[in-house]
This record gives sequence, C-alpha cells and structure tokens, in this order.
Amino acid sequence: MITADILVSGGTIVTLNDKDTIIRDGALAIRGDTIIAVGAKEEILAAHECGETIEVPQSIIMPGLINAHTHAAMTCFRGIADDMELMNWLNRFIFPAEARNVDPELVYWGSLLACAEMIKSGTTTFSDMYIFEELTAQAAKEAGMRCLLGEVLFDFPSPNIKTPEEGLAYTEKLIRKWADDPLINIMVEPHALYTCSPELLKAAKALADRYKVPLATHLLENKAEAKQLKEKLGQRATHFLKELGLLDERFFAFHCVMMDDEDIRLFADKGCKVVHNPESNMKLASGVAPISSMIREGVVVGLGTDGCASNNNLDMFQEIDTAAKLEKSARLDPTVMSARTVLKMATCEGAKVLGLDGVVGSLETGKKADLCIIDMNKPHLTPLYDEYSHLAYTVGGADVETVIINGRIVMRNRRLITIDEEEAMHRVRIIARRVKESLG
Amino acid sequence: MITADILVSGGTIVTLNDKDTIIRDGALAIRGDTIIAVGAKEEILAAHECGETIEVPQSIIMPGLINAHTHAAMTCFRGIADDMELMNWLNRFIFPAEARNVDPELVYWGSLLACAEMIKSGTTTFSDMYIFEELTAQAAKEAGMRCLLGEVLFDFPSPNIKTPEEGLAYTEKLIRKWADDPLINIMVEPHALYTCSPELLKAAKALADRYKVPLATHLLENKAEAKQLKEKLGQRATHFLKELGLLDERFFAFHCVMMDDEDIRLFADKGCKVVHNPESNMKLASGVAPISSMIREGVVVGLGTDGCASNNNLDMFQEIDTAAKLEKSARLDPTVMSARTVLKMATCEGAKVLGLDGVVGSLETGKKADLCIIDMNKPHLTPLYDEYSHLAYTVGGADVETVIINGRIVMRNRRLITIDEEEAMHRVRIIARRVKESLG
Repeated sequence: MITADILVSGGTIVTLNDKDTIIRDGALAIRGDTIIAVGAKEEILAAHECGETIEVPQSIIMPGLINAHTHAAMTCFRGIADDMELMNWLNRFIFPAEARNVDPELVYWGSLLACAEMIKSGTTTFSDMYIFEELTAQAAKEAGMRCLLGEVLFDFPSPNIKTPEEGLAYTEKLIRKWADDPLINIMVEPHALYTCSPELLKAAKALADRYKVPLATHLLENKAEAKQLKEKLGQRATHFLKELGLLDERFFAFHCVMMDDEDIRLFADKGCKVVHNPESNMKLASGVAPISSMIREGVVVGLGTDGCASNNNLDMFQEIDTAAKLEKSARLDPTVMSARTVLKMATCEGAKVLGLDGVVGSLETGKKADLCIIDMNKPHLTPLYDEYSHLAYTVGGADVETVIINGRIVMRNRRLITIDEEEAMHRVRIIARRVKESLG
Repeated sequence: MITADILVSGGTIVTLNDKDTIIRDGALAIRGDTIIAVGAKEEILAAHECGETIEVPQSIIMPGLINAHTHAAMTCFRGIADDMELMNWLNRFIFPAEARNVDPELVYWGSLLACAEMIKSGTTTFSDMYIFEELTAQAAKEAGMRCLLGEVLFDFPSPNIKTPEEGLAYTEKLIRKWADDPLINIMVEPHALYTCSPELLKAAKALADRYKVPLATHLLENKAEAKQLKEKLGQRATHFLKELGLLDERFFAFHCVMMDDEDIRLFADKGCKVVHNPESNMKLASGVAPISSMIREGVVVGLGTDGCASNNNLDMFQEIDTAAKLEKSARLDPTVMSARTVLKMATCEGAKVLGLDGVVGSLETGKKADLCIIDMNKPHLTPLYDEYSHLAYTVGGADVETVIINGRIVMRNRRLITIDEEEAMHRVRIIARRVKESLG
C-alpha cells in the first residue's frame, strides 16, 4: 500500500492533460504538496492508504483555475465608477482614488479579500501587478494561494516607489526574498509602453534575465493606445519591443486587443505569450483581441479577469464563458472557439503563460495538487451531457465546493479555511469609506 | 395599525420605480399578493402589525427578474451540442432530439427544472414559447411562478400539433383555461416569418386580438435569416409584418439582431417591443442587436436568456452583465449602456414588454409582491459603492437568498419551497439518457 495524505474520490476527473483524459468515477491521491496518482476510483483506493478521504460523488474534479492577469488589491475600488469613457474614468476616479488611498493597509486587505473571492470561485493561482506587491505576496501566502506577481514599474512615482531605480530595487528585493517559496513567485512588470521609457524597459529586462523570471506588461489594450504608441515610437510596438530585446519565451503581455497578423506572427516566432481579458475589454469598450487567430498561429493564450474596477469581479468561470461567446460573436462564427479551448486557457495554457506548466495546470501524477471540486447536483447543472460544455457555459464560481492548493485544503464545503472572510470584508469596508470620502 | 402578512425589513430597497428610488434601511409590507407599503424601516414597522417578518440586513431587496424570452423545457437539452455552425447544430442535434423526444413528460419536468433554476437565480416571471405549453403552464403554476407563454405555431407539424389550425385551437384553449389565473398568462406565438405562412400569421393576430393578449415571434435573428426573408418576402420583414397588421403595442419580437434604423423607427412608431438575448446571440454567433439605438428611439427593450441549448443557463444576472458589456464592446463606447439601463431591461422594462407593467417590474405600493432578496455580505460583493453597479456587474444568480412571488415565499435561504428539486433533477436525468440514446 502507498501512503497518501488526501484521497479525493468518486467524482468525474477532468484532467486537462495533453490527451484531454476524463475519468468517470475517478480518484486522485495527494501526498504532501503533490499529486501521486490519478485514475479509476477502485484502483486508486485499492493501492493507497490514506489519512483523509474526501468523497465527492456527483462532482467534477478539475485543475484549479489560473487567473493570469489581475490587480488583486483593486477589490477596494470595485464598482466605484462604471460606464464612463476610459480617460474620464481613469482621471476622475481611478487615478485620484489610488493616489490618495493606496497604502500597505489597502493593498494587504484588498489582496486578502481578492484571495477569498478567488478561492471561492475556484482560482488557485493568480498573476498580479500592482503597488506595494510585498503585501499582496504576504496576503497570498497567508491565504495559501499560488501566485506570480510583480511591482508595477513606470517612469513616474507611485505611492510606494519614487523612481524607476527604486522600483527595480524593490522588485529585486521581492525576487530574493521569495526565491525559495513554494507558492509565491515574482516577476518583473513594467506597466506599459506608454508609461515606461526604453531605458526602464531595458533595465527591467536585464533584471528579469538575471533571475530568470518572467517579464510581463500591458500591451495594445485599445485603439487610442495603439495610435499613441505609433506616434511616440515611430514603428509598431511589437517591433520596438523586439529591438529592445524583450521578446522571448519568458515575455507575456496583457490585453493585446490591437495586435494584427504581423504582431501575432512575431509573438509566435519568439514564443511570447498573451493574456486575454475579455470582460474588462468589453466593459471598457476596448475592442476584441484576435484570440482565435493567435491560437491558430501557435501563440499560447491564458485568461485573466483584470482588476475589479473594470470587471467587476474575479470569477474565472464567468471569464471562460465570456471568452468563448465573445470570440464567436466578434468573428460571426460559432466554431471559432470551443468550450475545451477556453477551459484550457484558464488552466493548462494559463500555466504555460506563467511559466508554471511544469508545476500546475492539469491533474497529473507529479504535478502540485492544485484543484477545485465542483458540486454538479444542482438544477442549473442538470442534465449533464458533456463536462467541457458545462464547465465553460454553465458552472459559475459559486458552484465550487472545495479547493486544494499545493496539497492543502483551503476551502471545504464553501467554508474558507485560511482566511477570516468576515474580517477581510470588514476591513475593506472601512477602507472603502475612506476612499469614498477622498473623492469628495 | 395596518395588518400585513409579510414584512421584509432592514435591507436596501432598489425599487426600480420611475424615480429610481433607493431606500437604505428600508422595509416592505405585503398583504395577500400585493405590496401595501414600501419605505423607511422605522416608519413601516411602526405602522404595520405582521404575521411574519423577514429580517435582511446587509441585503438588497429588488423586483424579481423578468426573463422575457426562453424555452423552459429545453433544460433537457442543456449542453447537448455546442460550438457548431447554426444549421448543423439545429439539423444534426436540436431538431432530431426534439422530434424524437419531446412529449408531455419532457416538457413538464424540463419546465419544472427550469422553474427551479429560475427561482434560484432571482427570476419571478418568464415568457415562454415551446411545445405542449399546457405542461409548462402546469409546472409554473406548481412552482408558483408568474409567466406569459404560448404554444409555438408553424406551418409544419410539431410533436404536439398536426396543423396550423390545431395550433391556434390549442392556443385558444390555453387562453380560456387560464383566463382568470393570477400567475399564468397566455399569448399567441407564431415561431418566425420563415416558418409561418402569411395566413397563419394573420390568423394568429386575429386570435390575439380576440382575447387582447400579446403576440410574439422570433425576428431577424441573424444574417442568414434576414437574407432568406428578403428573398422570400420581396420586402423588408418589418414592412411585411406591418402590412399583415401585426405591429401594435401588444406585439413583441425576440432577438432582432438584424434590425436597422428604419425597422427601429417603425417599431417605435407602432409601440412594438423587443426582447434582447445577448448570450444566445453571442453563442450562436448571430451578431449584436442594436439595443442602444432601439432604446434611444423609444423602443421598449426587455431581456431574455433564450433556451438552455444556446446559453447554457437561465441566470438573468449573467444576462444583465453581458447585455451591458456586449453593447459597450460592439459600439466601442463604454457610455452607451449603463448598469441602470440593463437592470431596467430585466425588471420594469421587461414588464412593459410582456404587458405586465401594471402588475410587476418595480417595488411600489399596489403592485404584486414579486421580489428577490440578495445577500450582499460576500467577498465578491464587497465593498459596495453603488447598488446598480453591483447588481449589473457583480451579483450572480447564486447570491439570491429568498424569493417571493405574488406574496408567496417560494425560496427561503436558498431552499426551494414549491419544488422538489431533487426529484426534478432525477426525472430530467432519466429523460436525458433517453435523449442521448435517441441520437445514437
């Protein structure tokens, strides 16, 4: 008999491995932080003796979702202003609210609340860019969530950072501090081409190379940005990045709405990755990223919610649903994006974007035990003809019952184990009062 | 002291009345089927003595949602086939599945399951078109849901109806049977212009006029239909309807994706209404209905999920969110559709579409007590700056705690009172096995 710490037993396992294996009446064995067996329930139970067995008949067991781009602490600004023209929204609400309020306390509690929301909707890994990211790392660590994050870098000061040099030094400190952590991964995150000088971009790349960590940035989010970059750079933005030496397999970009065929081919050639943010792009009226073209050309595409101010939630199941529907609608072709494709964007493909595909993104022996268990015994999930269809088009974050990250149960029967959610909500409500007052 | 049967007390009341009144720390008194008072908690409590008080601090109390177009029984085909070209999808899956399986049993259990799902996501009224609608009426009646429904009429036979005359007679029988029912309302529903002869359309209109009930149909759902109708009719579809005498204030149409400015002006002139089905239109790649233009021109627009085969759920909160985001994205303008506008589409405007605006759609004294209560004490609903924003962009169906229809509590703390959901799920699972086998 093999010893396991946790057996998850009796549901349908949607592995999202390379062969798209689905195991009905399956089981999964975990020892420490690692999946040590996945297979038919009878075989797994016969071969393992185990401390704790989680029986989940009528459930789907799947990899935890990967939110490949967000700004977690912006939960504090959720719904503060909507339905406005982008520059008006930024200049009248978001930027002043941030300048007057963002401090370590806001970032810590906002990030912890985000972790609560993410776990409760099946997300186990998130990729984050914001200010005071040490506090986001701390919140994720306490929540037991996996993440890849970086301090936002730009030419001008932030509430945390006075100069680009300081931002790079802060990032390097983060990298060194969390180097050996099993959950917290650090990357280098220049904000965007219109907010970072070529010097800052090059220095950011040098830092990322020195520690072999990913570098990620916002890119070509909408028409106005594309126009501004064209005038500023005198060439296409992707060529500019290539000349600076940023484009390689550890580079990924958020949004990429305005990328054309030439940009896509360049990304494919260089092995660069993309994070699609369909709900934020829709809400801000940014346009529709050419995701099906990217995937056809071989670009790896993940999925992210973006921050709460432009979504206004962190529910990746909604994002999956919207990613499929938006692409069909925009291309006037229902075959252009399948349920399976969008699910992969939120799991195994997202893991590739973050450089964590050796670690998570599918349920396979040897990978870390990051998974979510969905209760399928509900009216809106009945009947069940096809698991991929339900996971893409019908399941919502609230259907997630139990979440395991790195072998640790962080939510069970919708009760959070690592986070005091009442306290997190209470703290963020107090912060929100301060934010509201600051806007007059 | 005034006697009330139920007091709902302590939450924020989003009335969705003409003045958009929001009452914080409010209360609402119900006697029999009717709202007899809405106001500040202290005043309402002081003035009423009451059998039952539902205390809901940290909640939003709002009108029950109105799903203005669905095919309830199609829950039985939820997720049976996705991501396919429309005619392929219909001819290979939906039509054969229907022809071989639709019978009173399927319609009854499918509709009851749909009622369970709708109540659990805050919908209190639905508008339905399908086959064997007597069974949908029966299911709605048992569930305690309000509805407006009609048997689908076309030139060819259905599993229920052999000839157009039989369909009209069946509809008339429904109208007479349910004439005095407080919940069940019947309308006349010719399927579409490409499936109904001018004679059938005229006879349907005569029937609707005789009983002063609404007439509704699918219209201009996608490019292929628009092209087909142009060739078949030799004129624009809306002019054809006008010539047949169908266009008046009791006429409403589903989808209307391909309507242009002239169609919109005609609908506005005639007082015709439209039901927007954004998720279905996206999933089937039908295009984007010009909803903001319609509203600007004075056309009343409601919101519907369409059937489960093309959505794949009946969650109106998701539909609200998508309606706002899709319009912004399609028009490249974030100001074109506000949170408040889409909420109204799902409540007071939907009531106008169905001709039920004297009865439901807002929380006002004298209206029927159809409402849902949403628990706002959750991480993804924290903080709260603006109720409309949260209801449109953040709340999901699973956040609805308690639902009252016509003064009767049909769900309390997420437990359904009128429906045995386990039995409904069990029955639909058995039907689904039969459906699957029938497709070979």
